[in-house]
Amino acid sequence: MIVVMKPGAGPEHIQHVVDLVHEFGLEDHVIYGTDRTVIACLGDKRMLEKDAIENAPMVEKVVPILAPYKMASLEVKREKTTIAIGPQQFPIGGVKVGVIAGPCAVESRQQVLDTAEAIKAAGAIGLRGGAFKPRTSPYAFQGMGKAGLDLLAEAREKTGLAIVTEVIGTEQVALCANYADVLQIGARNMQHYPLLEAVGRVNKPVLLKRGMSASLDEFLLAAEYIIHAGNPNVILCERGIRTFESYVRNTLPLAAIPALRERTHLPIVIDPSHGTGHAHMVPAMSLAAVAAGADGVILECHPDPEHAASDGAQSITPQTFSNLMDRLRRVAQAVDRDL
Amino acid sequence: MIVVMKPGAGPEHIQHVVDLVHEFGLEDHVIYGTDRTVIACLGDKRMLEKDAIENAPMVEKVVPILAPYKMASLEVKREKTTIAIGPQQFPIGGVKVGVIAGPCAVESRQQVLDTAEAIKAAGAIGLRGGAFKPRTSPYAFQGMGKAGLDLLAEAREKTGLAIVTEVIGTEQVALCANYADVLQIGARNMQHYPLLEAVGRVNKPVLLKRGMSASLDEFLLAAEYIIHAGNPNVILCERGIRTFESYVRNTLPLAAIPALRERTHLPIVIDPSHGTGHAHMVPAMSLAAVAAGADGVILECHPDPEHAASDGAQSITPQTFSNLMDRLRRVAQAVDRDL
Amino acid sequence: MIVVMKPGAGPEHIQHVVDLVHEFGLEDHVIYGTDRTVIACLGDKRMLEKDAIENAPMVEKVVPILAPYKMASLEVKREKTTIAIGPQQFPIGGVKVGVIAGPCAVESRQQVLDTAEAIKAAGAIGLRGGAFKPRTSPYAFQGMGKAGLDLLAEAREKTGLAIVTEVIGTEQVALCANYADVLQIGARNMQHYPLLEAVGRVNKPVLLKRGMSASLDEFLLAAEYIIHAGNPNVILCERGIRTFESYVRNTLPLAAIPALRERTHLPIVIDPSHGTGHAHMVPAMSLAAVAAGADGVILECHPDPEHAASDGAQSITPQTFSNLMDRLRRVAQAVDRDL
Amino acid sequence: MIVVMKPGAGPEHIQHVVDLVHEFGLEDHVIYGTDRTVIACLGDKRMLEKDAIENAPMVEKVVPILAPYKMASLEVKREKTTIAIGPQQFPIGGVKVGVIAGPCAVESRQQVLDTAEAIKAAGAIGLRGGAFKPRTSPYAFQGMGKAGLDLLAEAREKTGLAIVTEVIGTEQVALCANYADVLQIGARNMQHYPLLEAVGRVNKPVLLKRGMSASLDEFLLAAEYIIHAGNPNVILCERGIRTFESYVRNTLPLAAIPALRERTHLPIVIDPSHGTGHAHMVPAMSLAAVAAGADGVILECHPDPEHAASDGAQSITPQTFSNLMDRLRRVAQAVDRDL
Repeated sequence: MIVVMKPGAGPEHIQHVVDLVHEFGLEDHVIYGTDRTVIACLGDKRMLEKDAIENAPMVEKVVPILAPYKMASLEVKREKTTIAIGPQQFPIGGVKVGVIAGPCAVESRQQVLDTAEAIKAAGAIGLRGGAFKPRTSPYAFQGMGKAGLDLLAEAREKTGLAIVTEVIGTEQVALCANYADVLQIGARNMQHYPLLEAVGRVNKPVLLKRGMSASLDEFLLAAEYIIHAGNPNVILCERGIRTFESYVRNTLPLAAIPALRERTHLPIVIDPSHGTGHAHMVPAMSLAAVAAGADGVILECHPDPEHAASDGAQSITPQTFSNLMDRLRRVAQAVDRDL
Repeated sequence: MIVVMKPGAGPEHIQHVVDLVHEFGLEDHVIYGTDRTVIACLGDKRMLEKDAIENAPMVEKVVPILAPYKMASLEVKREKTTIAIGPQQFPIGGVKVGVIAGPCAVESRQQVLDTAEAIKAAGAIGLRGGAFKPRTSPYAFQGMGKAGLDLLAEAREKTGLAIVTEVIGTEQVALCANYADVLQIGARNMQHYPLLEAVGRVNKPVLLKRGMSASLDEFLLAAEYIIHAGNPNVILCERGIRTFESYVRNTLPLAAIPALRERTHLPIVIDPSHGTGHAHMVPAMSLAAVAAGADGVILECHPDPEHAASDGAQSITPQTFSNLMDRLRRVAQAVDRDL
Repeated sequence: MIVVMKPGAGPEHIQHVVDLVHEFGLEDHVIYGTDRTVIACLGDKRMLEKDAIENAPMVEKVVPILAPYKMASLEVKREKTTIAIGPQQFPIGGVKVGVIAGPCAVESRQQVLDTAEAIKAAGAIGLRGGAFKPRTSPYAFQGMGKAGLDLLAEAREKTGLAIVTEVIGTEQVALCANYADVLQIGARNMQHYPLLEAVGRVNKPVLLKRGMSASLDEFLLAAEYIIHAGNPNVILCERGIRTFESYVRNTLPLAAIPALRERTHLPIVIDPSHGTGHAHMVPAMSLAAVAAGADGVILECHPDPEHAASDGAQSITPQTFSNLMDRLRRVAQAVDRDL
Repeated sequence: MIVVMKPGAGPEHIQHVVDLVHEFGLEDHVIYGTDRTVIACLGDKRMLEKDAIENAPMVEKVVPILAPYKMASLEVKREKTTIAIGPQQFPIGGVKVGVIAGPCAVESRQQVLDTAEAIKAAGAIGLRGGAFKPRTSPYAFQGMGKAGLDLLAEAREKTGLAIVTEVIGTEQVALCANYADVLQIGARNMQHYPLLEAVGRVNKPVLLKRGMSASLDEFLLAAEYIIHAGNPNVILCERGIRTFESYVRNTLPLAAIPALRERTHLPIVIDPSHGTGHAHMVPAMSLAAVAAGADGVILECHPDPEHAASDGAQSITPQTFSNLMDRLRRVAQAVDRDL
């Protein structure tokens, strides 16, 4: 942490900050520049709430130096983490790119089984589907609940696909962990800390979606919550951020892939469905995600998008999915990966 | 809802959309323009997931016409709602502007009681303070828990102030509702639906903070969740949005006040502390909030901000608070309100 | 400037950076922390392009410490600047709040004279109106040109109001400077440097609008261009920024007022018309601007907004303007200003 | 255009809007719904300023239906435009992906020639380099001017590369058009209309960068200005937008590629250097751009980025560029393009 003093700060102001720094268990290092005095604070106390120093007299700003997370960082673990998911223990984070697909919400037995078989045939390794749905409106379809989980389990039985399903509250964690191979934390829950802690105490991989206005620090701190609670198997999922752009539901910032690689060992999956909000943009952005180095892609796929109970506008058909898989494979190979 | 067809859409494409519209229980009204055909859909089915129509062939876009919320809207209730809070039943939403202040986190008996007495003397009507803290980092101070609630209750006893405290998970709703006069839902939980439903089943007013990237529709739908679950006493709180601006923690969009007035009957409170993130900007933005028509202001106030366990950088001292109250009163009177 | 090295940086990497720092004419000061080495760079070379150091091996990031502008900063001039405008030399930046109003575009003699007389009667000190219009579409009304300037001059003659008009290209600077009392640089031209330099060589005050996604540093550097070219009379105008919010044309960040006060001595004017885009929000945001400490407000006012050639949706009528002025005066007095 | 009336709008309010619609030369079509009356307006008057209707009594909002641009749109020209650039008339917009590279600013003869030869050898088709630099700070290096253009011309002579250079003011258009093969309009000038018109009157292709907070409509309207002035050879360049993200200089929204393809026939080039701001992210985002369907990529490449006079942090070395070209070629082939 660096404390920058305002021009005109006197010895008494500097001493006051130095005293605070000592109180916080840090060492000070004062540097007198031509225009500014800055006080470098030494010692690893990243857990301390230090921006309060900003309130001391004649302090201009406080600049943090260390990343606030630890176990998610490359400083603690330099080699990439690989997480095996599902009955066939498909590794996410290795050379192969993993593709997960399925409907936004589980709606019926036929919908789930048809989709599962189609995506399996095309090369997917996981089936996504929501049994509990976090809906923006209280009047929208809220999911089939436990009955939906049963259908997902049946689809796994038939296809060997790993089941990825969202858990929307602490109450459902135990139930969902019984059924699913991967627990998904949705973007709107990325900072719901009781839920992060609850999935941190469970022995199932977690797919953690980035909040739609979360910084990378906040994203990795959410992962840190889960790891800190005991579960190291966190898959990061970029699903787009909220910006001024109106032609997309979210802006998908693929530069998050190389940026996260500089910061963390955790695998990175991209969601081009929420990341654009429109089915016709999903193929281009899926190809781009793989080219940019994603470890996986998660897609919404529905046999009849026009009648989907939710997110129809961003769902592609199994036919489109199958064609896309062929193209994804070629791009994966062009960047020395495979599918 | 208006469905806009692409140029070149033929009769078969239009018929296909008309069939979908009928299936959804709506009436169609087709308008043939010079460049585009548009299909207006009539009937009140705001709860339907209709953007799936976007996936039909030759559809360019779907434009919603109706707001997606009902009970929070002016269409259902035209007169402003007033919500009485605390032992003295201070009305929020009337002519008087209500000021709520207090520390980010409850830290000690003396901190709470000193703050409570100071703000009471200056004219505040509510005491805010967190006993359970949603912290971005798992290593940060997580709050005193039940012991903190006891201190808040003691402060209420001594001062008559209404107690406003955040509830961060469904597990704490019953406990917090026993102690607090107003349950606060934080910005990061604005779309945690199980929590919204839980506070909707409790007989205590709710202060609902806008998510930092929530649209007004999403904000009012979150209020709708609470009302729909049975609790009509929702106070809306604007606390700033995330933008590209770096000189503030959040950008405080005061135009939300007149915009919400056009849409809802619920009272509106502004949080200039989170809305700026820096103590030195809090007075100007508090004055601006009252001038723009806010029904209340909620402020972070700490007797020793440099040593605050959280949010020290944005907390003002009781002395600054007292001076600010005098200025707020003058501005309130200048816009025909009072404090 | 502080250079933060990556963990694992060796003596050779540190020496390489130190050599670069010396080459750039700065002194180094190396601090070895527990997790990181940081290199503080001393010396006032704010004009140097230094982020290239980021490209040196094992550098994590470069943190600037000094603001990049000088003449616009409080470090060079601590007392607030007051700029006198118009035939009556009304001071902007003093105790009185100056209100400037008028149509987006000059459309006809009657429109201009009627508006001028109405706003003068209500207490305005300046008349705004565009003769050259920067329009998003090549098919939109582009302004009356020189004929419009003649009408503005006639209105000044009749009312004594200061004339504020936009200059959209270097070609019009001389012409506009002949007619206008204040030259306006629009938000879209805030970084058109040849234009900034051209108005910097003219002896007329400049109203510089903040670009819709400009940082405060970029805004003040644009002012610096004008001052550096020889014209110290720059009035800063906040007119809203582009964010994800869709209920407004722009989000008006009033916290820019206290933030700019911490950085610059230049006067600050707020534009609630562009800052919201909707006439019904203009009064609330004008009141808020004055409460937050603005030195002036600039408003779009049109006798017949429904038929305005541009920006009708955000223009208020002279009647609304007159009522608003009464309320603005009361709020100004409540914050120890006047109108 | 659709006008949505507020609930409670009476026949007189509807008639008033209908009268306005007629006045504007449009036909009305009134639809009475259960909750709202909407008025569809028929007729092609996209150039009209129609949002003024929003100001009519009891109007809730005005929803545009038609895109505001014409000649840039697929409605006027359905097949993709191909633009040949440079002495070897390399086509941008065909099957081959064109790569343009070079330093941010022309600094010396050796810098330019070395870079030109290196990128030519690696397969580039164009050389970029600024002779006139729009700099955020008046104290930064402003470019070599005409001497820089001479060096670029010499490099073309030697390598056959097409020269792409930025023109920052109307004054330089004639000079730059004499030297360059492609005139670049920078992001900060995307809405400087006199400049758009000036390059529209010149017989050289224009590379138009998207403004950092421009909507796609505004971007295509800027292209429309150039085409409307007589120059149909506009190459669109996405270079990133300003968002809340701080780990990048700009957020690069690659979904703009499929979105623009739905709207325009113009070729699309991506700038991953400005689009990220950090050299280490440039390769991943270049690969992603090609996978997403870009017609070209424009990159900053400098033989000694640590000493670059501008934008060093985002410049890659010729060696990195050469390696990247091999990978780009493989990805291009994987999506049925070539390099």
